[in-house]
Amino acid sequence: MAFTESEVIALLAQVFASSNPNLEVGIGDDAAVVRTSNRTVITTDMAVEGVHFRQEWSSAFEIGRKVTAANLADLFSMGAKPTFLVVAVSLTGSEDLEWIKNLAKGIAFEANLVGAAVVGGDLAKGAAVTIAITALGEVETAILRSGAQVGNQIYISNLPGWSRAGLAILEKSLPIETKAAKRAVAAFRAPSLNYAYAANLAKATAMCDVSDSLMTQAEQMAVASKVKFNLDFDLFQASADFAELRTLSEELNISITDLILGGGEDHVFLATGQDLPGLQIGSVSAGSGLNLLGNEKAPDTWRHFE
Amino acid sequence: MAFTESEVIALLAQVFASSNPNLEVGIGDDAAVVRTSNRTVITTDMAVEGVHFRQEWSSAFEIGRKVTAANLADLFSMGAKPTFLVVAVSLTGSEDLEWIKNLAKGIAFEANLVGAAVVGGDLAKGAAVTIAITALGEVETAILRSGAQVGNQIYISNLPGWSRAGLAILEKSLPIETKAAKRAVAAFRAPSLNYAYAANLAKATAMCDVSDSLMTQAEQMAVASKVKFNLDFDLFQASADFAELRTLSEELNISITDLILGGGEDHVFLATGQDLPGLQIGSVSAGSGLNLLGNEKAPDTWRHFE
Repeated sequence: MAFTESEVIALLAQVFASSNPNLEVGIGDDAAVVRTSNRTVITTDMAVEGVHFRQEWSSAFEIGRKVTAANLADLFSMGAKPTFLVVAVSLTGSEDLEWIKNLAKGIAFEANLVGAAVVGGDLAKGAAVTIAITALGEVETAILRSGAQVGNQIYISNLPGWSRAGLAILEKSLPIETKAAKRAVAAFRAPSLNYAYAANLAKATAMCDVSDSLMTQAEQMAVASKVKFNLDFDLFQASADFAELRTLSEELNISITDLILGGGEDHVFLATGQDLPGLQIGSVSAGSGLNLLGNEKAPDTWRHFE
Repeated sequence: MAFTESEVIALLAQVFASSNPNLEVGIGDDAAVVRTSNRTVITTDMAVEGVHFRQEWSSAFEIGRKVTAANLADLFSMGAKPTFLVVAVSLTGSEDLEWIKNLAKGIAFEANLVGAAVVGGDLAKGAAVTIAITALGEVETAILRSGAQVGNQIYISNLPGWSRAGLAILEKSLPIETKAAKRAVAAFRAPSLNYAYAANLAKATAMCDVSDSLMTQAEQMAVASKVKFNLDFDLFQASADFAELRTLSEELNISITDLILGGGEDHVFLATGQDLPGLQIGSVSAGSGLNLLGNEKAPDTWRHFE
């Protein structure tokens, strides 16, 4: 590498500098020391170059934002407030200090959105850039996947599918000219999460974020809660974004149900309860598994869930 | 891969099953929920296949132990007691379930040694196995690197150098026949840390663990504490292990000072204070940097520190 480890650590200590009063020992010792409430929520998420991101598709800043968002979404999904993060990164040695600084700035940017601070990390050498973030948060009463009740309604914070559409545009090297195409590519590069929505869901009986796909996560919640999730695709059309995403789906030759039900990485929040904010997309009944209502054809991968 | 992600998660939930009363939500939701004291110590450490370990040199169990030990050592170095771990792993897809199970068992074995539990994780796909562990601990008063005082003595828990000798044996494909060679290779594959030593050092003014090399870590402590560390190599010879390591160093044609001062990954504990247990190896004086006393020739890399 064209720089020493201590140069990188000094740079990172600067980017991640925090005046958080609960941070007692930050970057530079064997470990960080923070003040915590008596109930801590922990999650970890790893992203690998070539699998989760590509340097030719995303800037270092966007990569940093995206990996951080995936972790923060897990905390908000538990009803928790993020507090502190640690970041372990393997670098190939071909990155320059500027790239590393921008990666760190992307991580810090996303963490700052929710008032969290990066307090430590590790640097390693590897054949591909790999980023593992662990995020801590605090919560009084955690919202689990297993709490959905028969008779609950099912809600999402936003319409998913944009990130998957953006990936398709990049994979096919399609022009990024229309407003919808720009929005989709931006969502793939670094999704803008609706943290405020999740922070306002204390009444939810169950919650998770959609990292894989709405189908996958809805099934996981149905299984964990021992109930049946009935998703009504007609209800998705009430979203103000639906028409724009449908037009884009036609341009990409991907069905709208594939995009919305099969697309992940938007990290929209999926919750159950009564009279919650957000877009109602179905209801919970006795039984098990997933049920798709409405006039649209289910995605091919749907069969797995029935 | 020859298995599904949910199969792996079910397996890991079984290996990491814990009856820890402070674990409220374990593997299977978006994040884990644990009860914590009001001061939490956090560290993260990443190990990459081909850089930190090789599958032809170490079993999955040993790799799991070694990466976990590196994290636990950081917590003990702060005077903390480890509580909970999360583990993010990228797999290439060529590993079988048995290998993954043994990796998890190695992690669980090492965590169990100190009463800590693995409460969550993430699995990703990547071109090389990469393991990132984050460990949490609790502490009342953290022992920092910056606390060494003029007039303190310098101590180590054990003689370092075994892991580096073991790496040399494996790299040169030397026979592993003598007791010393077996001990060195075992130390490289999975060091056995002296956790009890570190847990008993509440009186230490400063502490860290030797992950890179004794020279590197001693210099870091000297810089952080704004003092001079005087290491007397003659004092190392009081160790009951010295003669065995010296014989091995001669067989390997590596100088004994190189092995002891330049070898890392044994994670021996380096501490300063008065009348501490362990092997006294020097003293702290006013000034800066490192000073090597005794009749042995300093390693070539020593110059960097003077």
